[in-house]
Amino acid sequence: MADPDTPFAVVDVHRTLRNIARLRDRADRLGVTLRPHVKTAKSLDVAALLHEGAPPCPVTVSTLAEAEAFADGGYTDITYAVGIAPQKLPRVIALLRRRVRLRVLLDSLEQAVSVAEAAHGAGLPLPAQIEIDCDGHRGGLTPDAPRLPEIGRVLHEAGCLDGVLTHAGESYFAHTADDRLLAARNERDTAVTAAERLRTAGLPVHTVSVGSTPTAHAAEDLTGVTELRAGNYVFFDLVMAGLGVCDLDDLALSVVVTVIGHRPEYGWILTDGGWMAMSRDRGTAAQPQDQGYGLVTDLDGTLVPGLVMTAASQEHGTLTVRDGARLPDLPVGTRLRVLPNHACATAAQHHGYHVIDSGRAAGPAPVIQAYWPRVDGW
Amino acid sequence: MADPDTPFAVVDVHRTLRNIARLRDRADRLGVTLRPHVKTAKSLDVAALLHEGAPPCPVTVSTLAEAEAFADGGYTDITYAVGIAPQKLPRVIALLRRRVRLRVLLDSLEQAVSVAEAAHGAGLPLPAQIEIDCDGHRGGLTPDAPRLPEIGRVLHEAGCLDGVLTHAGESYFAHTADDRLLAARNERDTAVTAAERLRTAGLPVHTVSVGSTPTAHAAEDLTGVTELRAGNYVFFDLVMAGLGVCDLDDLALSVVVTVIGHRPEYGWILTDGGWMAMSRDRGTAAQPQDQGYGLVTDLDGTLVPGLVMTAASQEHGTLTVRDGARLPDLPVGTRLRVLPNHACATAAQHHGYHVIDSGRAAGPAPVIQAYWPRVDGW
Repeated sequence: MADPDTPFAVVDVHRTLRNIARLRDRADRLGVTLRPHVKTAKSLDVAALLHEGAPPCPVTVSTLAEAEAFADGGYTDITYAVGIAPQKLPRVIALLRRRVRLRVLLDSLEQAVSVAEAAHGAGLPLPAQIEIDCDGHRGGLTPDAPRLPEIGRVLHEAGCLDGVLTHAGESYFAHTADDRLLAARNERDTAVTAAERLRTAGLPVHTVSVGSTPTAHAAEDLTGVTELRAGNYVFFDLVMAGLGVCDLDDLALSVVVTVIGHRPEYGWILTDGGWMAMSRDRGTAAQPQDQGYGLVTDLDGTLVPGLVMTAASQEHGTLTVRDGARLPDLPVGTRLRVLPNHACATAAQHHGYHVIDSGRAAGPAPVIQAYWPRVDGW
Repeated sequence: MADPDTPFAVVDVHRTLRNIARLRDRADRLGVTLRPHVKTAKSLDVAALLHEGAPPCPVTVSTLAEAEAFADGGYTDITYAVGIAPQKLPRVIALLRRRVRLRVLLDSLEQAVSVAEAAHGAGLPLPAQIEIDCDGHRGGLTPDAPRLPEIGRVLHEAGCLDGVLTHAGESYFAHTADDRLLAARNERDTAVTAAERLRTAGLPVHTVSVGSTPTAHAAEDLTGVTELRAGNYVFFDLVMAGLGVCDLDDLALSVVVTVIGHRPEYGWILTDGGWMAMSRDRGTAAQPQDQGYGLVTDLDGTLVPGLVMTAASQEHGTLTVRDGARLPDLPVGTRLRVLPNHACATAAQHHGYHVIDSGRAAGPAPVIQAYWPRVDGW
């Protein structure tokens, strides 16, 4: 890790595999299919760790660019979990024609009519899921929404109704295990209630999809649910550690930076990793323990006591100490790693990942073993 | 603008040229060379607007990737305005060998020694500027720092001393014209004082460089200064408009998004432009008028009264109204533009710009005339 010019993003494959195994075991116990959201890593190489050796697994994507890249990579079972803009349907149909089972998401009659018309025009089914709102976080229909059966019927009559999908987005603010368990129960109950309402109206519901990283790690009973989604968990981050969903030593993504200056009069160490490398995400600002732009470790991954990245400009990071810690002596040229607030946002600032394996002891600092590119754009 | 799939970034070349002309006229009146910072647009095509038809102008860069891309584009006078990490000097020397006059920045004796040794090893001068701190914003030495003459001497004896550079980073929080004028005076005075101190020590100082977008637009006297830097001004943004440095109709960068849903019970309009498209930057949160993630216009660039992007997830934006405005009727599929908090951060979320010219009236919405790629990475 002394070679590439800083800043650069590092993925620890040892921690990633451990995180992946943890949720896979949970999904197996809960009896549901796991459909990881690949929006966090946006990497075919990271996704390959999800199904090591086995055929590609079902995945969730946040953009059609991801859907296309994963289709190119052999993935044939993909859910595009952002409400569909009708103008994007030609790209969806192009993927369906390549025998990729791509599902779209919608929560309005106008979208359902667009999907039905596009399916009719293309002469093939265009599987769609109805977005259900379980916690007022973002989009979706509540299970008792008057329009729900009508939307279901429009889709069903066009051969497009696949099921329902919900996401407990508010669980990112659930700070206790009890709160996350309640959020998971609510997410499951809401999705199942919506599915039952459609079935009662005579509409077949195949997929009942739930998930978020906090609820996926909290759920105890997913009866009636067919699949579980989560994305952030492959890397985890300071927000998830702050909630208690993971430990700090589960964090698999970090950014390597170099010390470029000191302001001893202010207690600052300056680095070449600014918001361009970390993103502007300050997710922990809303948590009891604000972690600034990130916690700092040495190249080996050991936390430097009390050292936090507290400010960022485009290509400058400012490190300070807290909790009475002594400002460490880190000369110009010293390389450090910064653990991010939000893995999805920090990863998005980079074109790819330098890959290390902290499970292989190989001297004081892990060795870079590969470079894994990311899918970018829309 | 109805064709490309959303979200995508748009640059209005009409506004960009007006912004460029405004600061060029100021620099001419002030009698200083303008050295634009290309870190905002990171585009050779946008940079070409800075010197239309004329040979490439001096530029400032924030990464060596920019320096290399601009060298490839014919720019030969480049300042890399981030404190140099010694490990990066081989790339600097490679550019110098290509007859690019690339200046590096430093504020410590250890960096000066590294630069002197690298210059000696390469057998060529490696021009360096000493970073001066004028307002406690980030790095640099104060003009009275004991080490300043010593650092200057190390550089001078290696044939590397080019001059001094300062940046009034705190001017981004100067909310009145008087405050910005004071910041500009202080920036100039500090740089000139540092230069005089070095000269008094018998050290030649060629370049005395100052600048930030707020101070560049406020300075009235730059006696003793040789060059002015600014970057954000080519596009401007809501932070600069909030300060009063520009008007809302100077903002040249926006992001086109599509309405993908509604939550009338919450007063929300949902779009496909989340933080991936806008960045997580919330610079206006620290201003008297918080503009959320951005103000919303129609495709023509006319503000939709009261409509603000108030929340973002990765690929979702939430629009709400304020000031008692009526929630507008914007059906699924409607395209809008969002004006960003911070142009540098929002631009960085995109691989390039779709280019329009609002000066050419051509129907209700401007027409895309070109696609200009960005330089990314480090």
